[in-house]
Amino acid sequence: LSIEEVEVAPPQKDEVRIKILFTSLCHIDVYFWDAKGQNPLFPRILGHEAGGIVESVGEGVTDLKPGDHVLPIFTGECKECPHCLSEESNMCDLLRINTDRVGMINDGKSRFSINGKPIYHFLGTSTFSEYTVVHVGQVAKINPHAPLDKVCVLSCGMSTGFGATVNVAKPKKGQSVAIFGLGAVGLAAAEGARVSGASRIIGIDLNPSRFEQANKFGVTDFVNPKDYNKPVQEVIVEMTGGGVDRSVECTGSIQAMISAFECVHD
Amino acid sequence: LSIEEVEVAPPQKDEVRIKILFTSLCHIDVYFWDAKGQNPLFPRILGHEAGGIVESVGEGVTDLKPGDHVLPIFTGECKECPHCLSEESNMCDLLRINTDRVGMINDGKSRFSINGKPIYHFLGTSTFSEYTVVHVGQVAKINPHAPLDKVCVLSCGMSTGFGATVNVAKPKKGQSVAIFGLGAVGLAAAEGARVSGASRIIGIDLNPSRFEQANKFGVTDFVNPKDYNKPVQEVIVEMTGGGVDRSVECTGSIQAMISAFECVHD
Repeated sequence: LSIEEVEVAPPQKDEVRIKILFTSLCHIDVYFWDAKGQNPLFPRILGHEAGGIVESVGEGVTDLKPGDHVLPIFTGECKECPHCLSEESNMCDLLRINTDRVGMINDGKSRFSINGKPIYHFLGTSTFSEYTVVHVGQVAKINPHAPLDKVCVLSCGMSTGFGATVNVAKPKKGQSVAIFGLGAVGLAAAEGARVSGASRIIGIDLNPSRFEQANKFGVTDFVNPKDYNKPVQEVIVEMTGGGVDRSVECTGSIQAMISAFECVHD
Repeated sequence: LSIEEVEVAPPQKDEVRIKILFTSLCHIDVYFWDAKGQNPLFPRILGHEAGGIVESVGEGVTDLKPGDHVLPIFTGECKECPHCLSEESNMCDLLRINTDRVGMINDGKSRFSINGKPIYHFLGTSTFSEYTVVHVGQVAKINPHAPLDKVCVLSCGMSTGFGATVNVAKPKKGQSVAIFGLGAVGLAAAEGARVSGASRIIGIDLNPSRFEQANKFGVTDFVNPKDYNKPVQEVIVEMTGGGVDRSVECTGSIQAMISAFECVHD
């Protein structure tokens, strides 16, 4: 990683140039910086969790104007393809996640350069930059009163945990939910369970210092697998008289995935 | 397998003795007769897909009487446990599938014997017998006008394919559904897709002689993987402009499972 002076070209048709005020670091950025198991596409500006303000808009952009507070989103929506029109999918044909795409949809070229030499984009967002250019379908306008330093995590970590819980696990009022891992994604999952009306939210983490924070996000019970001599799924099944109604795995560990599967009742 | 003269004891509390008129052979019966990978529990009366008439009822049985037309069901419901009371599960605590259970719930003993020596039960149904005794929670009363020689397959094959499609895949009106395997389970899955309002039902089978029959169950398009030099999922993705909305795998082949997964759009 290096800090460079980069020229950011004006936005073209259907593009928006954003002044990035806050950006957070997600493990996905580190993963693609490492470039293990992917195409190493460098030099590249990483970053996809951010909050900023529209600086200028290209031709055809009518629903955004300079000064609007926005979040760049890496899972864009053209709002016209069969996936965007479907109620079941948002895997847009045009703007879906494509980690090998290094230029803009419009002309395939980069809007970043150093002395005329192009610097590649990442996920259509490239938020590790004071200014970035993104497709209008990859911009979400937000309330200008929302604190950009905090809502920047809505772009990825928060929506991942919250969305998985609310849209996929769909706990019903009064049900029990186990959340494996109480990092940012797990806390967002707990919040999703809380707003869904879950009455018991069991947080599982190896780090007990996370338990206090998790309580603020609705976690009612805490389990540290290290405190037991048996698999944590057995502990949870006993605690709940047969298993939880839903479980959400937010660690990426295969062992946790197995536990998360096995702690749910039939 | 052998044909034997067996004594069938009267039904006890919460039990029903059924005169079996028709029973069909499911691969599950063959699998447990083979006893590979399970506890070999013999001598045993297999069979779980059948139609019959109530011959007598035990103490406490009030909603069934001699003469009622019934189907024995191996996934019983006590109607009182948390699973039976839940909208999400029917894995009854008392009567769920237990292939190691060889006697009745009431006293743990068999109702079948030869010269006083017990013959084991199977799945709580044991329909390869002129008379069988089952728990009242494992009996479904049906319309006496339903032809028992045909509806006997409702007990397993038909409900497996139909239920997986209607209750799990849940295709919406106008959607496309791929059905892998056009045996009894696959035909029932096609019927489930048809009654759900699917507009395109693609049947996949290596045996082209099954295609005519499948058409009667709503299958609109046929694909024989042998007719192509590429994976069948690619054929289906091309036929449907990106993949089907739902797919149901009814063969048990791992290769078909992979194809069934990959032929669905994002």
